[in-house]
Amino acid sequence: MAGPDELVFNARDLHAFMLSVWPDAADRFSPERLERLEPSFCRLRHPVKEEDLRPGGTVSGPTLMHLADTASYSIILAHLGDAALAVTTSLSIEFLRRPVGPTVVVDCDLVKLGRSLAVCRVTMASAEAGTEPNMTRPEAIANVTYSLSLI
Amino acid sequence: MAGPDELVFNARDLHAFMLSVWPDAADRFSPERLERLEPSFCRLRHPVKEEDLRPGGTVSGPTLMHLADTASYSIILAHLGDAALAVTTSLSIEFLRRPVGPTVVVDCDLVKLGRSLAVCRVTMASAEAGTEPNMTRPEAIANVTYSLSLI
Amino acid sequence: MAGPDELVFNARDLHAFMLSVWPDAADRFSPERLERLEPSFCRLRHPVKEEDLRPGGTVSGPTLMHLADTASYSIILAHLGDAALAVTTSLSIEFLRRPVGPTVVVDCDLVKLGRSLAVCRVTMASAEAGTEPNMTRPEAIANVTYSLSLI
Amino acid sequence: MAGPDELVFNARDLHAFMLSVWPDAADRFSPERLERLEPSFCRLRHPVKEEDLRPGGTVSGPTLMHLADTASYSIILAHLGDAALAVTTSLSIEFLRRPVGPTVVVDCDLVKLGRSLAVCRVTMASAEAGTEPNMTRPEAIANVTYSLSLI
Repeated sequence: MAGPDELVFNARDLHAFMLSVWPDAADRFSPERLERLEPSFCRLRHPVKEEDLRPGGTVSGPTLMHLADTASYSIILAHLGDAALAVTTSLSIEFLRRPVGPTVVVDCDLVKLGRSLAVCRVTMASAEAGTEPNMTRPEAIANVTYSLSLI
Repeated sequence: MAGPDELVFNARDLHAFMLSVWPDAADRFSPERLERLEPSFCRLRHPVKEEDLRPGGTVSGPTLMHLADTASYSIILAHLGDAALAVTTSLSIEFLRRPVGPTVVVDCDLVKLGRSLAVCRVTMASAEAGTEPNMTRPEAIANVTYSLSLI
Repeated sequence: MAGPDELVFNARDLHAFMLSVWPDAADRFSPERLERLEPSFCRLRHPVKEEDLRPGGTVSGPTLMHLADTASYSIILAHLGDAALAVTTSLSIEFLRRPVGPTVVVDCDLVKLGRSLAVCRVTMASAEAGTEPNMTRPEAIANVTYSLSLI
Repeated sequence: MAGPDELVFNARDLHAFMLSVWPDAADRFSPERLERLEPSFCRLRHPVKEEDLRPGGTVSGPTLMHLADTASYSIILAHLGDAALAVTTSLSIEFLRRPVGPTVVVDCDLVKLGRSLAVCRVTMASAEAGTEPNMTRPEAIANVTYSLSLI
């Protein structure tokens, strides 16, 4: 188990791990989506699909909650590898503006990596594919807590 | 717009409304799922499907978040009918125990129905179909806030 | 360490413990304020003082947050006694209505008592001294999480 | 009412306003504490006092919650002046590490300033007086929502 300044999984390890333990979810952890993966930080980019939308073309709340959880799990897994079991214990999200895509960028800071708890701070905003979002005007912000146990 | 002691939509109205504005989501609001609908309270029962599960047979966090939001929207819509637009502004959820189904029961208390904000308190627990869950040992609890605007 | 159905401290033990470890805070844990103390539940009643008020006679937000934390710590301590160290790790509160006193009643349900985490659900409402509050129209609701470690 | 890029109160206006409407609380809004005040951002520095401490020299949770609320109110007031009434509707805080002072620095980003809601994101860390805190290892993070109404 590494500390907050060191990663044990890179983007490919992470995807390979998900393929082995939860193949149905592995797509969400694909290296193409994980644009950045650094100690204590990752950025996901999610291409919005038809099924993610509510009427009027707004990305749905459940889609954003799912993304906040996915980004948090990604950075925790990158730090802990397969040495620990991480389970979401709480998630709180504020919806600030209407997200419209076509991609949703999800920035995730790991602000605590303790022995029994990890806490992530997530910022989400829409952007055109390949462009930078305006993270000073986020569409949603979330705090996500994971409980950790060594295995 | 009715107050916290009066409903303007019953379970069928609610389902018909969802069919008209968001047919893809209407299933989640079907009268068979909405076991109770009373002023300031509703109970949903969600039959767990394969796609709701994580490895090990645990109902996934995103499924529970989605259910908390659906129950909150149901009771708010039942009070406001089509007289107002309700948009989720925040959701905070605590995951307490492993939910295993086969159904997840979602109790939702509307604790505030103001002019611009509505707040719901949600309690979730697994149960066999047709049986009462043990709501003193919930699997998840959530607070959900909706912003309201008259239309 | 007892389970969720058994208390190791009664109201006097709890007060005596606080007097020994944190005398300045012991008043908030006095037996006169702890109106009910049962497995997985307690009720505090706080007499509102001048210093708790904002202009206009509203009980301040920090006063309510403090009360939510005090009630949560009380029920956890009653279950664990001096066998564990409990530290607040998160608190989320929704302010629903203007609390005006003259007493604030704080109901606290211990919804999870695990090995490493305890979670409380708090409901607050004003009432005249000696009377029952209307807890279906609470003035604030809170979820409080404590991290536990055996000592 | 100004937008998110423009302030109507500077630090002195803010203090003068608090002195006029809530003199007992004005100290917490003094210009010496408000180290930075810019559009959509402010930084408070709080000198820890004896009464803020728990046994062991830890800054108490209620002190941090109070600071998160004070910083949020400061930036909102600086944007709105006396043109609106702002009331806290929710606060969620994560306690990550033991804060020990001697000063607590509170950074507050105004991430949404809407017509009816404002949302702030708060980051807190201890530091020696006059030095920069390490905000990548915060001691607490909070999200604070205010309801706004024009007056």
